[in-house]
Amino acid sequence: MIDADRFLENLHTLRSFGASGIGNGVVRPAYSDADIAARSWLADQIAQAGLTPHIDPMGNVFGLRDGPALLLGSHSDTQPEGGWLDGALGVIAGLEVARVNPHVSVVSFQDEEGRFGALTGSSVFGGAITQDQADALTAKDGTTLGDARSALPRNDGPVDPSRFTGYIEMHIEQGPVLDAEGDQIGVVTDIVGSRQIEVTFTGQQNHAGTTPMHLRRDAFQALSVFNTALNDRLRNVVTPRTVWTIGHVTLHPNASSIVPGRVSFSVQWRDADDDRLTRMERIVRDTLDEIAGQTGMQLSLHGLRNLRPTAMDATLRAALEAGAEAVSPGKWRTMPSGALHDATNVARVLPVAMLFVPSIGGISHDFAEDTDEADLVTGLNVLAHAAQRVTG
Amino acid sequence: MIDADRFLENLHTLRSFGASGIGNGVVRPAYSDADIAARSWLADQIAQAGLTPHIDPMGNVFGLRDGPALLLGSHSDTQPEGGWLDGALGVIAGLEVARVNPHVSVVSFQDEEGRFGALTGSSVFGGAITQDQADALTAKDGTTLGDARSALPRNDGPVDPSRFTGYIEMHIEQGPVLDAEGDQIGVVTDIVGSRQIEVTFTGQQNHAGTTPMHLRRDAFQALSVFNTALNDRLRNVVTPRTVWTIGHVTLHPNASSIVPGRVSFSVQWRDADDDRLTRMERIVRDTLDEIAGQTGMQLSLHGLRNLRPTAMDATLRAALEAGAEAVSPGKWRTMPSGALHDATNVARVLPVAMLFVPSIGGISHDFAEDTDEADLVTGLNVLAHAAQRVTG
Repeated sequence: MIDADRFLENLHTLRSFGASGIGNGVVRPAYSDADIAARSWLADQIAQAGLTPHIDPMGNVFGLRDGPALLLGSHSDTQPEGGWLDGALGVIAGLEVARVNPHVSVVSFQDEEGRFGALTGSSVFGGAITQDQADALTAKDGTTLGDARSALPRNDGPVDPSRFTGYIEMHIEQGPVLDAEGDQIGVVTDIVGSRQIEVTFTGQQNHAGTTPMHLRRDAFQALSVFNTALNDRLRNVVTPRTVWTIGHVTLHPNASSIVPGRVSFSVQWRDADDDRLTRMERIVRDTLDEIAGQTGMQLSLHGLRNLRPTAMDATLRAALEAGAEAVSPGKWRTMPSGALHDATNVARVLPVAMLFVPSIGGISHDFAEDTDEADLVTGLNVLAHAAQRVTG
Repeated sequence: MIDADRFLENLHTLRSFGASGIGNGVVRPAYSDADIAARSWLADQIAQAGLTPHIDPMGNVFGLRDGPALLLGSHSDTQPEGGWLDGALGVIAGLEVARVNPHVSVVSFQDEEGRFGALTGSSVFGGAITQDQADALTAKDGTTLGDARSALPRNDGPVDPSRFTGYIEMHIEQGPVLDAEGDQIGVVTDIVGSRQIEVTFTGQQNHAGTTPMHLRRDAFQALSVFNTALNDRLRNVVTPRTVWTIGHVTLHPNASSIVPGRVSFSVQWRDADDDRLTRMERIVRDTLDEIAGQTGMQLSLHGLRNLRPTAMDATLRAALEAGAEAVSPGKWRTMPSGALHDATNVARVLPVAMLFVPSIGGISHDFAEDTDEADLVTGLNVLAHAAQRVTG
């Protein structure tokens, strides 16, 4: 039987590795002492649950079965100032289900939070990058991942994805929707795709007292005109779940008495539909060209990043929906995941699905991140129900 | 007789003090070795011209007459990367006129470019600040003005402004108007006033993937909406010579994947009419309030700066207009000065006027700053003509 108290107790024990001392906050970046200690503790829990602990070369910690199994899990590393649930929730929920379901394996992926790359452990597991490529990644403090992983207690060799039948990841939403709508469970339809472009407008730097308005080529004004036009044009193309963001802006020379001669900024847009992302990209590029022409800017574009959307597997998703309706009837919804998750990488090699529980106030990547324990237990029960349906 | 060749030769000699070796550029900040050497050279030239050199406690270098005199001049310190003309032009033109007109004195003010304050030498001369207050000003390198001025070769004591009948400053325009319009001379009507306010909008920092558009309180979007509304509303109030600028913008946390939670920015506006500046301030404040309310921002305002406009003296200005029409008929105009000048400070104690010559391409505060030598000589002749009319 699923034991909600044991599940919550395990979650709180995991929180003690790297506890920040501020609320329930945790400081447990990939390969830190706290992270390595937490992974050793997890391997012990896995052994006690009757599974075979296995630490792969990246430091992904698996609990394996002899036969084919459904893989449940997430990651146990955190942001430099992280919450106690984030990836830890999916790992401990997977462990609890594995304690009672003999056809379930469990995993904690490594470096999901991107101390070195982004979702690095699942990138290697899913074959998006090789271990050699991962080893060359470098943290902000200059450490390479290759050096950092020498701190692992042991290396049991790679795990072949084909030993698993699928992957289900439970996670906090990291957004405000479930909390705002009063739902307990989100069954994920897609992990949205994301495209991003870096833009520079170059106009003419001038004295802000002596340069008449009609002779200015003011880069900030050009950015503002672009932003207004882009918002207007995207409205014809987007859905209520599409998002777009100008999150990074650097003016030059950025002085009150100088007409800005240059601005660099990012434009990022996310949607579950790759065709819509393409239509949005055309609008972004056309609007940049047109506004640059109108405002006398020289336009340069750098580094388009294109992460494709990932659709969830229909069978696994149906099992989660059935579980949600059984455990929390009428208090769940389907929704896209706006954030990236390890499931994106695992989808390269296995059918995947995800479920969310609410994030109070939508807060994440912060010591203040939290979820009502009743919602955590509801999520655990939905996961157990779905796993039973898939493996039964 | 005014000697155009001697004037240009003196200008080029002054340029050799702190020559940057890049074009005609000059590096001669206040109290630097090059600045002190240039001021000693200037004192020698003043003596040779038959005036009494006088270095006041600030390092303002005067050429005095025994009786009442019209004061001509500007400043000979430069920006860290300065042009050869900027203030030097007005000093050397004043010296040339003083060589031939016995009722003319000359001055080079100190620290106009603000290594320590802003227009510091004329601020003390005009009584806007005391010498003690000036001495406490500190440069970016930690040097106090009090320490820096100990490098002066001598201290002849303060100069009483009442010994002068007025002040005329010749300067490069530092803007594009004369060059663009093909005029040789600008007779200044007013030195414009300038007001500036620092603003912070605080919204809500969020994940750019998981936060739906309708739940965002995006500080950059609020800034863009404010900018658009402000531009629209100011159009009813401004003249073609009014300017306003958002030159400084800092987003927080300024990351591509995070909805900006906070933005700090400057709003600056300049006009020759103080009433118009007040009407504009009301629009700026009302628009900030309204847009902050609309977009869910917390609004905070810091440090309003208010520099009043300075009208030029009618008699001195009429003399410059007569001189311009005599020397360069039909190729001059009246115009405001968008930049601050020493004349602003001197206006506290004397009637003042200014004339401009063109800046090629409107470039200033740059090694590339330049003016056609024919225009320099035209400016000199207008200045001499006006001085003759005022003192004759």
